[in-house]
Amino acid sequence: MNRDLLETFPNPNPGRAYLIEHTAHEFTSLCPKTGQPDFATITLTYVPAEKCIELKSLKMYLQSFRNEGVFYEAAVNRILDDFVAVCEPAWARIEGKFGIRGGIGSVVTAEYESEESQP
Amino acid sequence: MNRDLLETFPNPNPGRAYLIEHTAHEFTSLCPKTGQPDFATITLTYVPAEKCIELKSLKMYLQSFRNEGVFYEAAVNRILDDFVAVCEPAWARIEGKFGIRGGIGSVVTAEYESEESQP
Amino acid sequence: MNRDLLETFPNPNPGRAYLIEHTAHEFTSLCPKTGQPDFATITLTYVPAEKCIELKSLKMYLQSFRNEGVFYEAAVNRILDDFVAVCEPAWARIEGKFGIRGGIGSVVTAEYESEESQP
Amino acid sequence: MNRDLLETFPNPNPGRAYLIEHTAHEFTSLCPKTGQPDFATITLTYVPAEKCIELKSLKMYLQSFRNEGVFYEAAVNRILDDFVAVCEPAWARIEGKFGIRGGIGSVVTAEYESEESQP
Amino acid sequence: MNRDLLETFPNPNPGRAYLIEHTAHEFTSLCPKTGQPDFATITLTYVPAEKCIELKSLKMYLQSFRNEGVFYEAAVNRILDDFVAVCEPAWARIEGKFGIRGGIGSVVTAEYESEESQP
Amino acid sequence: MNRDLLETFPNPNPGRAYLIEHTAHEFTSLCPKTGQPDFATITLTYVPAEKCIELKSLKMYLQSFRNEGVFYEAAVNRILDDFVAVCEPAWARIEGKFGIRGGIGSVVTAEYESEESQP
Amino acid sequence: MNRDLLETFPNPNPGRAYLIEHTAHEFTSLCPKTGQPDFATITLTYVPAEKCIELKSLKMYLQSFRNEGVFYEAAVNRILDDFVAVCEPAWARIEGKFGIRGGIGSVVTAEYESEESQP
Amino acid sequence: MNRDLLETFPNPNPGRAYLIEHTAHEFTSLCPKTGQPDFATITLTYVPAEKCIELKSLKMYLQSFRNEGVFYEAAVNRILDDFVAVCEPAWARIEGKFGIRGGIGSVVTAEYESEESQP
Amino acid sequence: MNRDLLETFPNPNPGRAYLIEHTAHEFTSLCPKTGQPDFATITLTYVPAEKCIELKSLKMYLQSFRNEGVFYEAAVNRILDDFVAVCEPAWARIEGKFGIRGGIGSVVTAEYESEESQP
Amino acid sequence: MNRDLLETFPNPNPGRAYLIEHTAHEFTSLCPKTGQPDFATITLTYVPAEKCIELKSLKMYLQSFRNEGVFYEAAVNRILDDFVAVCEPAWARIEGKFGIRGGIGSVVTAEYESEESQP
Repeated sequence: MNRDLLETFPNPNPGRAYLIEHTAHEFTSLCPKTGQPDFATITLTYVPAEKCIELKSLKMYLQSFRNEGVFYEAAVNRILDDFVAVCEPAWARIEGKFGIRGGIGSVVTAEYESEESQP
Repeated sequence: MNRDLLETFPNPNPGRAYLIEHTAHEFTSLCPKTGQPDFATITLTYVPAEKCIELKSLKMYLQSFRNEGVFYEAAVNRILDDFVAVCEPAWARIEGKFGIRGGIGSVVTAEYESEESQP
Repeated sequence: MNRDLLETFPNPNPGRAYLIEHTAHEFTSLCPKTGQPDFATITLTYVPAEKCIELKSLKMYLQSFRNEGVFYEAAVNRILDDFVAVCEPAWARIEGKFGIRGGIGSVVTAEYESEESQP
Repeated sequence: MNRDLLETFPNPNPGRAYLIEHTAHEFTSLCPKTGQPDFATITLTYVPAEKCIELKSLKMYLQSFRNEGVFYEAAVNRILDDFVAVCEPAWARIEGKFGIRGGIGSVVTAEYESEESQP
Repeated sequence: MNRDLLETFPNPNPGRAYLIEHTAHEFTSLCPKTGQPDFATITLTYVPAEKCIELKSLKMYLQSFRNEGVFYEAAVNRILDDFVAVCEPAWARIEGKFGIRGGIGSVVTAEYESEESQP
Repeated sequence: MNRDLLETFPNPNPGRAYLIEHTAHEFTSLCPKTGQPDFATITLTYVPAEKCIELKSLKMYLQSFRNEGVFYEAAVNRILDDFVAVCEPAWARIEGKFGIRGGIGSVVTAEYESEESQP
Repeated sequence: MNRDLLETFPNPNPGRAYLIEHTAHEFTSLCPKTGQPDFATITLTYVPAEKCIELKSLKMYLQSFRNEGVFYEAAVNRILDDFVAVCEPAWARIEGKFGIRGGIGSVVTAEYESEESQP
Repeated sequence: MNRDLLETFPNPNPGRAYLIEHTAHEFTSLCPKTGQPDFATITLTYVPAEKCIELKSLKMYLQSFRNEGVFYEAAVNRILDDFVAVCEPAWARIEGKFGIRGGIGSVVTAEYESEESQP
Repeated sequence: MNRDLLETFPNPNPGRAYLIEHTAHEFTSLCPKTGQPDFATITLTYVPAEKCIELKSLKMYLQSFRNEGVFYEAAVNRILDDFVAVCEPAWARIEGKFGIRGGIGSVVTAEYESEESQP
Repeated sequence: MNRDLLETFPNPNPGRAYLIEHTAHEFTSLCPKTGQPDFATITLTYVPAEKCIELKSLKMYLQSFRNEGVFYEAAVNRILDDFVAVCEPAWARIEGKFGIRGGIGSVVTAEYESEESQP
């Protein structure tokens, strides 16, 4: 959970609003109550403004959750906050799809919209 | 069908409207007419306000239907009412997808929107 | 094609607009031109008003088409008319998905909205 | 259940042992106990000897079960017996895959091998 | 490509706007440049006005493309024009999904809306 | 777990060795350690000798596990023993496919062969 | 149905028995009784001896059935005979998977083994 | 990355706004940082104005990326710019779905709308 | 990688050879060369002798690989060795299905057969 | 097509015959006749003797086909020969699954067995 791992590069087409989606199938963290590992697929979707996220740095950032205890809801919101702080997108969404626990699967989804891009 | 089993924890991001979905694949109750078991997948989707539902308590609550007689339509509305009373979400939906009976499968879906979140 | 087979029970939550969907995988009737059997999956989706359809009576009603000659388009509209007459829903839709004939599969879909529920 | 409906044509390659499979997705009969309709997919697989089954006659033969009461096990064995009597294949198998009843799906499979083709 | 093959019958429910969809999996024509065969799945979706398309005539009409040279874009627009001219629907859409050529699959979709049904 | 619920009927084709498979998607029992419900799909496959299992009695028998505590391995072996004792098949197999617990799904499979049918 | 269209090239590894499979999704011919088009997926699998089939010539050969009337069983055996005559493989199999007619799909499969490669 | 490879032909139905979609499953380029090959499925969707894209020229154009170094985001925007410059459509969209790298799959989507077609 | 975490319980049916399969979807370890995380689905299949593996202890054992560096081939063989040492089965197999790296997915499978159970 | 790119490491369990499978989804080469790119999924399955193939070197080796002209049959046999020469396995198989050309998809499979491991 180390925001400093995220790196960006200049958006090659800042004049056009377009969509980028990265789906990380291998996210894992720990349950803060039981210490048991949790597993999820994290999908980051965003409309870049001036910066794009560098793919390898995104991988390293997501790996930094590996041995941290964090609830589903907090993990998704934290990733969104970190991404928005570093990449300053026009719009962004994080979806976390967590593995089955006690016969129940869970999906948490949070969105961000910059003030400039709101109507 | 014991509402008191549901427990909540404080929403870690109350300032952001975001979506949580829990899908319970192992719901079972009894048919009130024949006493025969019914099976369903129950999907709870909601936008939290001040509280989030605790996942293990949701499992225990859904298990409390195991030996109760209840019609499809009543079960879905009852789960929605109990969830809304305890968790007080901004918005919520319950979908129950019931197994095939006499060659017919059934889905019942009910929604709730809090007065504050209505336009 | 006997409307009298349809039975209803009082909607347990008449104060909430919610959705019920029954999918019958085993519908069969006869082609009125050739006498050959037709097969379809019939999906009934509706928002109940005062009454809900009783599931077993729906099965018996759909079985009453077994040895009747009826075109696809007429079958779907007839089921919708019969259902609306007996169950008086706020809204209803019938979808009939018919098997492949001459390399062509067919789907017919008809909707009904009660005058009260129209804006 | 009328064996006389089955027609054959001469095998165009009687000198070569090869495999023919016909899968009928639209088989229906009645339950002899309850009178309720049953639905199945019937797969006929065979190695022809002197005769091949004519496809349209197979369809008509299978349709002759439509309003007959017959158990799953009896239906599959009956189809095999009728087919063997009329088509006299080197080898044949009938698989009947029946729809879900009381949460249980059923498959019945029976084989025939001619005395000449046994080692 | 013979419009005269299309036949219609009177819409059994002209008072209700409803949807009919026919999906033909076995469409084939020729490439006008190379003479090589093309293969497609053609889906016709429409809201009937006074007339419905007769299913067997639709099959015969689509077969009339078998040995004609026609580009993807022209085929879909031609089928739409012919269907509209004969069946005079309130609304119609033709989708043609063509097989892979040079590693590229293609879909062409065209719609028609009658002047009366436009708002 | 009441063997007496199983009923049989005479095999309509005792002279032919053929295969019957019943797949029950809605099996549930309790974990003997935690009291938590377990869910499984149970598949019974057998070659009948003199008797066939009656389908509705199989459903009632499987339902008798609903509130009993039993381990996966014991449940599958118990069902096989009860089935063999009542139905006396030439050959039988029980497969139990249990739901995901702690990220792990389980399948237990046991077979029986009568002494006469062994080579 | 013109065997002369098939061309071969020398097997680059005649010293090793290996398997080649070509699956043609776009085969069409005519029904010799009704003149109606038939559609199939043809799979050719073989172990080459001295020669391999040239892929484009296989396409042209299969296209030569387009306007010929031929039964399913005859088509598959004919393709096998032509392929064996031209390519002289150690072993070969043709599978033809034909589209649904009257609710029935069909698969015909024929094999060839050269005398040298038989044990 | 050679725009001159793209060729067009006159839109056969310039009076009707309709949709054309080409999906190229076999796109490959190089990573400009590591020189390693990237693989993607590129989907071009557009509403033609006066011109349609010639399918073979699209294939040749996409092949011209094979040994060029280009980032995901730049590739998708470049393809859109080249297509718009040559084909001058009313509307167009490019979606690039890139293979998994470090456990992460990526999709980049960019759209274009001509000034005339904007409301 | 701590064998002592594995616990067993007495096989409830030691007189019958039957099959148990546990599939763990959430296995993760580290690459010993790069320190990067690896992810796999591990399937343990075995025929018990005197002992069965306790499911929760299997989960804890597999979790003990989380922060250990181990190659694919070594991980699968190590799990098999540990399982055989503790559970002493008649037969066992471990399959590890590892995530895509550099566009390549990997599966490693190893088996064990006790001396008594070999023919 | 550079065998020297393949590297090995010592088999960690040379005393046990076990199976390793690597599936490369991103293989591309050129058609030697037309110069057009071909695409395939290459699956390498083997039983190691003293050496295992190093995964990254396998990736680099397969990439060396990128701009080489080679027929399907020759590519698969060449990969098998190179792998056997460098890794000296007990048994090995290469399967190449090539993309659709002219409506036809192709699979080529070749196996190797060392003299010691043959019975």
